[in-house]
Amino acid sequence: MLQTPLLRDASPAKARAEIRAGRWQSHTSGIAERHVQGNVVILPEASAGDFLRYCQRNPKPCPLLAVSEPGEWALPALGTDIDVRIDVPRYRVWRHGELVAEPTAVAELWRDDLVTFVLGCSFSFEQALRDEGIALRHVDEGRNVAMFRTNIATVPAGPFRGPMVVSMRPLRARAAIRAIQITSRFAAVHGAPVHLGDPALIGIDDLSRPDYGDAVDVRADELPVFWACGVTPQAAIAQARPEFCITHAPGAMLITDLLNHQLASF
Amino acid sequence: MLQTPLLRDASPAKARAEIRAGRWQSHTSGIAERHVQGNVVILPEASAGDFLRYCQRNPKPCPLLAVSEPGEWALPALGTDIDVRIDVPRYRVWRHGELVAEPTAVAELWRDDLVTFVLGCSFSFEQALRDEGIALRHVDEGRNVAMFRTNIATVPAGPFRGPMVVSMRPLRARAAIRAIQITSRFAAVHGAPVHLGDPALIGIDDLSRPDYGDAVDVRADELPVFWACGVTPQAAIAQARPEFCITHAPGAMLITDLLNHQLASF
Repeated sequence: MLQTPLLRDASPAKARAEIRAGRWQSHTSGIAERHVQGNVVILPEASAGDFLRYCQRNPKPCPLLAVSEPGEWALPALGTDIDVRIDVPRYRVWRHGELVAEPTAVAELWRDDLVTFVLGCSFSFEQALRDEGIALRHVDEGRNVAMFRTNIATVPAGPFRGPMVVSMRPLRARAAIRAIQITSRFAAVHGAPVHLGDPALIGIDDLSRPDYGDAVDVRADELPVFWACGVTPQAAIAQARPEFCITHAPGAMLITDLLNHQLASF
Repeated sequence: MLQTPLLRDASPAKARAEIRAGRWQSHTSGIAERHVQGNVVILPEASAGDFLRYCQRNPKPCPLLAVSEPGEWALPALGTDIDVRIDVPRYRVWRHGELVAEPTAVAELWRDDLVTFVLGCSFSFEQALRDEGIALRHVDEGRNVAMFRTNIATVPAGPFRGPMVVSMRPLRARAAIRAIQITSRFAAVHGAPVHLGDPALIGIDDLSRPDYGDAVDVRADELPVFWACGVTPQAAIAQARPEFCITHAPGAMLITDLLNHQLASF
């Protein structure tokens, strides 16, 4: 398997080609790092209206970048040659809310009624943080970001409801303050943090045991800083139990042609 | 003595008239609350150049709003009828770096070579915080804000040097994040916080014993949030030991005619 650094400066098309060929099947943190990555949710048309309202009501965890026509696997607004059936490194397949498989392609499962939702991902603001000299431990250590379910309830829509999932990055106070300023400019990719400091206040018992992704150390002079995360819909899908659903695997995102800085206000 | 609420909605001219008449001799938190208040430093012309460079090098604690001509007690940029010799509720008089008096007027001490510096004050962004529904405990309790010397060194200029002084407000995480966004718009009045969380990391041993102002409780679900403070020059004056100096007493500010929102970017 290729190591992340080899793909760091890759073009989105090159990165997708490696993924499509099955040579990269893992998390995409740090890959094609100037380009927007997206969380993916694919649902039958019968559930798509409810899910669209769920995103509208929960813009911090579910910032919509694109929605496909039913049955379409191309996403021309996000890249010229995207095929969402084969361009995600690893998928999760859900039936009636149960995770049943984690394949590297879903072309054989495709249906004419499937609608693809692509949601912004915090990886987009990581580049802006690193450009300011703010080190991110999970990137430096080549790990997936740590993600946690919280006790913050999302606003329901139809059957979709459940806890907000957050990603956590440990930062010293001054870097945390600067990170709040920077990520406030990126509303399309979760925006400002939803919490920082004591994890128990949002229902997280143990930072060393993330619900998704990899644990990283939080040092004595650091604060854990929590951003709303695009894995939130996966918790809602487990609650809503749609008859069929495909998502990306946490951290293994769709790489698009958009540039991260295109998403910044100001 | 008048209670603060009676002056909350006062015009700046009315508030200054009460102060000038000696009927308000205390801190000005919450008085004429839509108007800019200023930290005051008055120095002989011989020290004024050094102090101006000190402010330029330390814009977070020392954001300059106005500098007078030598000997002038009017500040037309800040208000039509300001007389800086009598319009501050309580002054501090320093000789060779020693605090020697805390009078309510300094007209009798005036000299033709005195230059007045007015620095922005965090009270200006408190109104913006409260307009967003962010409660400030010291305001609600009618106290002066709590201020602390830190181990953060300012950048020296001539004889002026010393620790940054900060003001502290306890906030829950979500309010702290919003407060960082709001105060980032107010660079002329200290801007974003310089620290939040563990006070020991910036050399503060005991939050219940402020170096200036009044202590307020920090509850278990709150973070202490620290902003650079315009009392910082008073620590520098104690180091520089200019032969003569006048400042405001911590929290007892000059009330100007400017509106707080005029200082906001965006």
